[in-house]
Amino acid sequence: MNKNKFALTPPMGWNSYDYYDTTVNEEQVKQNADFMAENLKDYGWEYIVVDISWYSCEAGYKRDEFQYVPFGKVEIDEYSRLLPCPERFPSSADGVGFKPLADYVHSLGLKFGIHIMRGIPRIAAHNHMKVYGTDKTANEIADPYSICMWNPDMYGLEVNKQGAQEYYNSIFSLYAQWGVDFIKCDDICRLDMKSAEKEIEMLYNAIQNCGRPMVLSLSPGPAHINKAWHYEKYANMWRITDDFWDSWPLLKNMFERCEIWQNHVSEGCYPDCDMLPLGFIGKGFGEERLTNFTKEEQITMMSLWCIFRSPLMVGAELTKLDKWTMELMTNSKVLRLLTHSTGAKQISRDDKQAIWLSRDTQKEAYYLGLFNLSDQVRNIHITPEELGLDGFKGCVFEELWCKDSINNVTEMLEVNVAPHGAKLFEISINILYTDS
Amino acid sequence: MNKNKFALTPPMGWNSYDYYDTTVNEEQVKQNADFMAENLKDYGWEYIVVDISWYSCEAGYKRDEFQYVPFGKVEIDEYSRLLPCPERFPSSADGVGFKPLADYVHSLGLKFGIHIMRGIPRIAAHNHMKVYGTDKTANEIADPYSICMWNPDMYGLEVNKQGAQEYYNSIFSLYAQWGVDFIKCDDICRLDMKSAEKEIEMLYNAIQNCGRPMVLSLSPGPAHINKAWHYEKYANMWRITDDFWDSWPLLKNMFERCEIWQNHVSEGCYPDCDMLPLGFIGKGFGEERLTNFTKEEQITMMSLWCIFRSPLMVGAELTKLDKWTMELMTNSKVLRLLTHSTGAKQISRDDKQAIWLSRDTQKEAYYLGLFNLSDQVRNIHITPEELGLDGFKGCVFEELWCKDSINNVTEMLEVNVAPHGAKLFEISINILYTDS
Amino acid sequence: MNKNKFALTPPMGWNSYDYYDTTVNEEQVKQNADFMAENLKDYGWEYIVVDISWYSCEAGYKRDEFQYVPFGKVEIDEYSRLLPCPERFPSSADGVGFKPLADYVHSLGLKFGIHIMRGIPRIAAHNHMKVYGTDKTANEIADPYSICMWNPDMYGLEVNKQGAQEYYNSIFSLYAQWGVDFIKCDDICRLDMKSAEKEIEMLYNAIQNCGRPMVLSLSPGPAHINKAWHYEKYANMWRITDDFWDSWPLLKNMFERCEIWQNHVSEGCYPDCDMLPLGFIGKGFGEERLTNFTKEEQITMMSLWCIFRSPLMVGAELTKLDKWTMELMTNSKVLRLLTHSTGAKQISRDDKQAIWLSRDTQKEAYYLGLFNLSDQVRNIHITPEELGLDGFKGCVFEELWCKDSINNVTEMLEVNVAPHGAKLFEISINILYTDS
Amino acid sequence: MNKNKFALTPPMGWNSYDYYDTTVNEEQVKQNADFMAENLKDYGWEYIVVDISWYSCEAGYKRDEFQYVPFGKVEIDEYSRLLPCPERFPSSADGVGFKPLADYVHSLGLKFGIHIMRGIPRIAAHNHMKVYGTDKTANEIADPYSICMWNPDMYGLEVNKQGAQEYYNSIFSLYAQWGVDFIKCDDICRLDMKSAEKEIEMLYNAIQNCGRPMVLSLSPGPAHINKAWHYEKYANMWRITDDFWDSWPLLKNMFERCEIWQNHVSEGCYPDCDMLPLGFIGKGFGEERLTNFTKEEQITMMSLWCIFRSPLMVGAELTKLDKWTMELMTNSKVLRLLTHSTGAKQISRDDKQAIWLSRDTQKEAYYLGLFNLSDQVRNIHITPEELGLDGFKGCVFEELWCKDSINNVTEMLEVNVAPHGAKLFEISINILYTDS
Repeated sequence: MNKNKFALTPPMGWNSYDYYDTTVNEEQVKQNADFMAENLKDYGWEYIVVDISWYSCEAGYKRDEFQYVPFGKVEIDEYSRLLPCPERFPSSADGVGFKPLADYVHSLGLKFGIHIMRGIPRIAAHNHMKVYGTDKTANEIADPYSICMWNPDMYGLEVNKQGAQEYYNSIFSLYAQWGVDFIKCDDICRLDMKSAEKEIEMLYNAIQNCGRPMVLSLSPGPAHINKAWHYEKYANMWRITDDFWDSWPLLKNMFERCEIWQNHVSEGCYPDCDMLPLGFIGKGFGEERLTNFTKEEQITMMSLWCIFRSPLMVGAELTKLDKWTMELMTNSKVLRLLTHSTGAKQISRDDKQAIWLSRDTQKEAYYLGLFNLSDQVRNIHITPEELGLDGFKGCVFEELWCKDSINNVTEMLEVNVAPHGAKLFEISINILYTDS
Repeated sequence: MNKNKFALTPPMGWNSYDYYDTTVNEEQVKQNADFMAENLKDYGWEYIVVDISWYSCEAGYKRDEFQYVPFGKVEIDEYSRLLPCPERFPSSADGVGFKPLADYVHSLGLKFGIHIMRGIPRIAAHNHMKVYGTDKTANEIADPYSICMWNPDMYGLEVNKQGAQEYYNSIFSLYAQWGVDFIKCDDICRLDMKSAEKEIEMLYNAIQNCGRPMVLSLSPGPAHINKAWHYEKYANMWRITDDFWDSWPLLKNMFERCEIWQNHVSEGCYPDCDMLPLGFIGKGFGEERLTNFTKEEQITMMSLWCIFRSPLMVGAELTKLDKWTMELMTNSKVLRLLTHSTGAKQISRDDKQAIWLSRDTQKEAYYLGLFNLSDQVRNIHITPEELGLDGFKGCVFEELWCKDSINNVTEMLEVNVAPHGAKLFEISINILYTDS
Repeated sequence: MNKNKFALTPPMGWNSYDYYDTTVNEEQVKQNADFMAENLKDYGWEYIVVDISWYSCEAGYKRDEFQYVPFGKVEIDEYSRLLPCPERFPSSADGVGFKPLADYVHSLGLKFGIHIMRGIPRIAAHNHMKVYGTDKTANEIADPYSICMWNPDMYGLEVNKQGAQEYYNSIFSLYAQWGVDFIKCDDICRLDMKSAEKEIEMLYNAIQNCGRPMVLSLSPGPAHINKAWHYEKYANMWRITDDFWDSWPLLKNMFERCEIWQNHVSEGCYPDCDMLPLGFIGKGFGEERLTNFTKEEQITMMSLWCIFRSPLMVGAELTKLDKWTMELMTNSKVLRLLTHSTGAKQISRDDKQAIWLSRDTQKEAYYLGLFNLSDQVRNIHITPEELGLDGFKGCVFEELWCKDSINNVTEMLEVNVAPHGAKLFEISINILYTDS
Repeated sequence: MNKNKFALTPPMGWNSYDYYDTTVNEEQVKQNADFMAENLKDYGWEYIVVDISWYSCEAGYKRDEFQYVPFGKVEIDEYSRLLPCPERFPSSADGVGFKPLADYVHSLGLKFGIHIMRGIPRIAAHNHMKVYGTDKTANEIADPYSICMWNPDMYGLEVNKQGAQEYYNSIFSLYAQWGVDFIKCDDICRLDMKSAEKEIEMLYNAIQNCGRPMVLSLSPGPAHINKAWHYEKYANMWRITDDFWDSWPLLKNMFERCEIWQNHVSEGCYPDCDMLPLGFIGKGFGEERLTNFTKEEQITMMSLWCIFRSPLMVGAELTKLDKWTMELMTNSKVLRLLTHSTGAKQISRDDKQAIWLSRDTQKEAYYLGLFNLSDQVRNIHITPEELGLDGFKGCVFEELWCKDSINNVTEMLEVNVAPHGAKLFEISINILYTDS
């Protein structure tokens, strides 16, 4: 299987983390899936992803003290493989795992994903539990020195020990039986982890071995640009920042990240700007709120993610989406950039503004993003020369959010952009694009 | 002027440093130019570059103690601009600079380049010398805290002071008058220099201002991958390592560098693997020698530089080239990769071997480099799947160095490669390339 | 209890690690204790210390693969407290712990010490075991992110959680019942451990709480000089290097360490140069050997440790000591520096030699160490002025190893010292020491 | 000469920097000297130190742009030696340098000091000026890569070149002729300077060579505790922080610094807490002000400096001192700690408070500093045990600032201390001090 064919365009979907933290349950997943099938699927949204701690029977317990309960009770089979907690996911009872839920999601015409942590459960190592299909036990393949710095559940694997690849194979076989389409593996994509490179390869091998295409998404980020080749070789998505939330400094910083990673977007290979903290989020964290982003900031975020071609995973509780946010998420002309644009590049960036350009893959059109990174209204202007075009004669500039068109630009395009806001233009053109 | 049009393909030429160090003179430059015009020009070699210290009247003095004589005598005009030392470059007398030599090189159908150091001469600052076209003096624009860590000649500029851009403009105007086609600017391309980013932009502006296209090459490296966008925006070439010499560990390390930079090669934008230490080198350093590279290593070097599309600047004294080296440098099928290939990417790499693939821009052909990084003969094999091809049926594999062809490969190409050696294949193909 | 009174002079003793690694057993401890009582006690040697892993029932198992078996079986009581493994320490059966062995050691007129790891056993946390005298369980006070980087047995404590100090109290109460006189706590004395400072205080508190004086020794080092005050406040000894072995570069480096720490030696406060790898060592590591140190290097080591006043803990299997080593360890005039000297300071040091000076606390005498750090015989000379003395008139220089005396020195003392060797002089003097 | 005899107790004096920055002139120096002789000398204040840039003829010019004018005019003799600028120091005309001013200061019964920068003037190197008593020129001994990061005047020396020590000798011979008693050498005491260690030794040698005792003070700090031995060997004072100013966070941080350096105070060896920003300061910086320190903070500062035994160099314009500040600076009982106390050590410190203890060298008395580091009034209490005393029975506690006495303390001394304030007690005692 060519892993690049698992995701021909950047994945779009819903992830439970931003709203539910560790606490999401089956009913809630289904409600979000139902909503997506009915309202979002037609626009390309298709993944339903259950994020961290689905195996934990104490998730959310003592939330003021811990995000992740140390040494808490987990659901696990005899082969050291974590299973969904049946109290939270009733259909998973009797060891059938996520299969019923995945089937349900598939029945809606959607795809199903889960979050995993790198490694093997600590409890399996301490109890010398079995590894499926081998004569090894968990203590023989767990690395007692390889731990995650923020989650207490797992040990990393002794990557050179026999049984280690087999363990990853065993969990992916299980996920394949369940019908999983998307794996978000955590604690594996960060500069300071020595074994992580090898474990990424092992995940890749386990997917190839299981025979079912699964998109492989790496967290938590920031991924290291020096290792870009490695991510592109073995994964489909990798986070280019640490957790992203509804804060303007984080959004502004994403422009720097996108600058760095812009040459690394291709079929099946997507630097990942992280979930979209839209709509209602934060409930599981004890602070349910409407996103702190202003509307202008939300437009900036969507415009950047789309022109850069980041995966789009929305963090909102879907059933609570308002009309404005729904429109934001279902603007077909904007979403077209995910599926039918290429060659996105930063034209310029400073502390006040940024400009991006890409082109359509099927028609004579360019996409131009003008971003106001300052706190005041800003007049942003751009010449054809700066874009590598011969001129603007004959060009029509359609702003894809407000849907206005400008068609009499001669020397220079000049636009007022709101503070923290963006304008995203499609430039219809009869003139050949002259730059490489 | 679009700076990417200054170098449509990776520049090829000769640089005086590897053989002459700081000491080259006019006669020697001319002899190398003559040789190139007669023997190499037809293969694409065209730049003649005078490297560091051409303004120094004491270059090479006390060579056992210094590479660069501190506080030594330099040739300089009243506007703080360095000029060639007339003892070494007689035609430059009376302040005409490199114009006569550039004219000579141009008369041979070649191009002329020079090396400069970032900044303004320290002596100009201490003597309060004038800055052309301004009422400023050198002390007003020199930054006394911005020095090069290995060359004592210059101060960096106070990049925000009036007169600073004007100084760079004034030297590039002079170079334009001389007829310079290529600028190698040193002490400007390294992670740890705070002002360097801004000074790179100032060099770009000065070239735009002077009106003459000049290829801008940045040293000493290693350039920082996080700043790739900036290099691509303002320069044509930037070194991806520190100085490269005829040492296997350095050559082996270049594979890691090329992995990192592979997505950043495009028209007018060339990550630079540095000069080719071929033939006779080292004389100015007091240790004239035939390159320490074995023939196999030289083939590896040429194959990597060409498939990666690094600039090719040979360091050898050209007039002493032997037949074998001449053939190495004039293999048209190999050099075609510089001008007519694209999309080079690393397929795999470990401590023992590396594999690269690219494709021709004009015909249905691929280029495959198989590199043996180990110290033993190695059997390297590759399947069509690993290359993203549907199969090898109908493919002809022509090895471009030994000129053998293989045409009956079915499942897997298998080749023995000498220690530290390489095989570079052109794959003629009737099958569509199926990977992105 | 004033902890400085627990060790009025630098502790001297035997430690099981250098010879036995993790594998020492009761019989072996007793044999070494017997030997010490009979042959070394009169010279001040008194501590018998059982080093790491005495609770492990698999210590030494798969030694080619692990020094410390991960997830191996350990002896532990219901209160999360480790106990000696009864197979290795038969007298500890029925939960009586090290009491019988400590009693035996005490019966010989010696003192008994044990090694511990910072924290609480991982297995206790995963099994939610009790904490003595509290309603807490191990999982509530173990920090799942605080692990040792080289030993897999423990979690550090959540230092601010109720129950944490109580746990340390509970183990020290047990050790007090056993009759422990000396605690070597590991994984606690190193720059990069955030919680370690607080855990050192907790150990101090636990000793105060248990009511029995115990010398507190901190490992593994290097301790950080910036934290010297903290060590001096709460501990008796702290390692100033990582593990020290019989290698000349490590010994030479100790001179730099002693330079740094020389102002920090006082009653009850001893920067620790680590065990003396004399005699036969290495058996538990699978490479039993006579120390790699030459005789000259051993003299250098003993001279430095004694003039600096490091603790002296010998790593040799005592029963195998030869006559030469016995004499090295029982030179009363040299050992007197540990107990009756003060004010040791480095007079000079470079790559070739080092000179140290201290003075006797009871008589008009100085101690002068001349160390040859070079690989050739070296003539080392010193003037009274360099030592801060008015002159050498009337001084007698007795070399304490070879027992020669020199008494006619006038201007300058000049001595030939063997490569890597040392001369240690007692200077008997009638002239007042004039420097502070 | 034994350099430790140059300063038997911590130097006390006045330094021009805090008030005048680079701009002080002869008249101003004299006025401060006059004031000191009349009002402060009897309390031990004796040094008059002219700080940085006395050789600069443009000091203070363009002060909004530069603290130190780059490439500005300096007064220099033919031997590359800087001289006082005669416009600012008229008595120095005709090359006689600071001799007349030093004579004047000596005539008042005071001592005279100057500031110097490490190295040789850049202008001397670029102009190939002579080095006194050698056939070398400045360019031969200046290191073009060794510059100060904040002052543009000098190059460091090529420490291994012949002529380098001779240059330092030549300037110190001049200073000896002038009658200089104190040298504050800048740009020499900081972790990151490779050559600085060797240059410190060269300064030491130059003082020994010149034959006149001069106190050697090293700046700018922070000195590195790892190099303490080196400072103690070759210098008299060394700064333990970067520049200290009238800011509470800097003062609070000094407690951490004093903790680190407390074991390194001895005759002739003084870790230096930097100048006292009392009274009027800041004029030369363009912001003349009364110190920002509250009275309580000033008491804290004086108490810490005195119990720690830092040098005391006041930065105030002396002629503007008010009565309160004069009393602060002339409290004999407090100043006695500088000259007649020893063994100062920190008893405890946390974010809220610090406690220090030392003892008198001539009488049965201890000194106890109680420091409130918090922003609220604080009740600080201390037991005899914490101080290493047998009890408080018979002790009289005299607070040295407010002069109250307490003599009925039994179990515990309890005192309310103002926010950021201190209490400094002399404990008169009949009980032997029982701790080392």
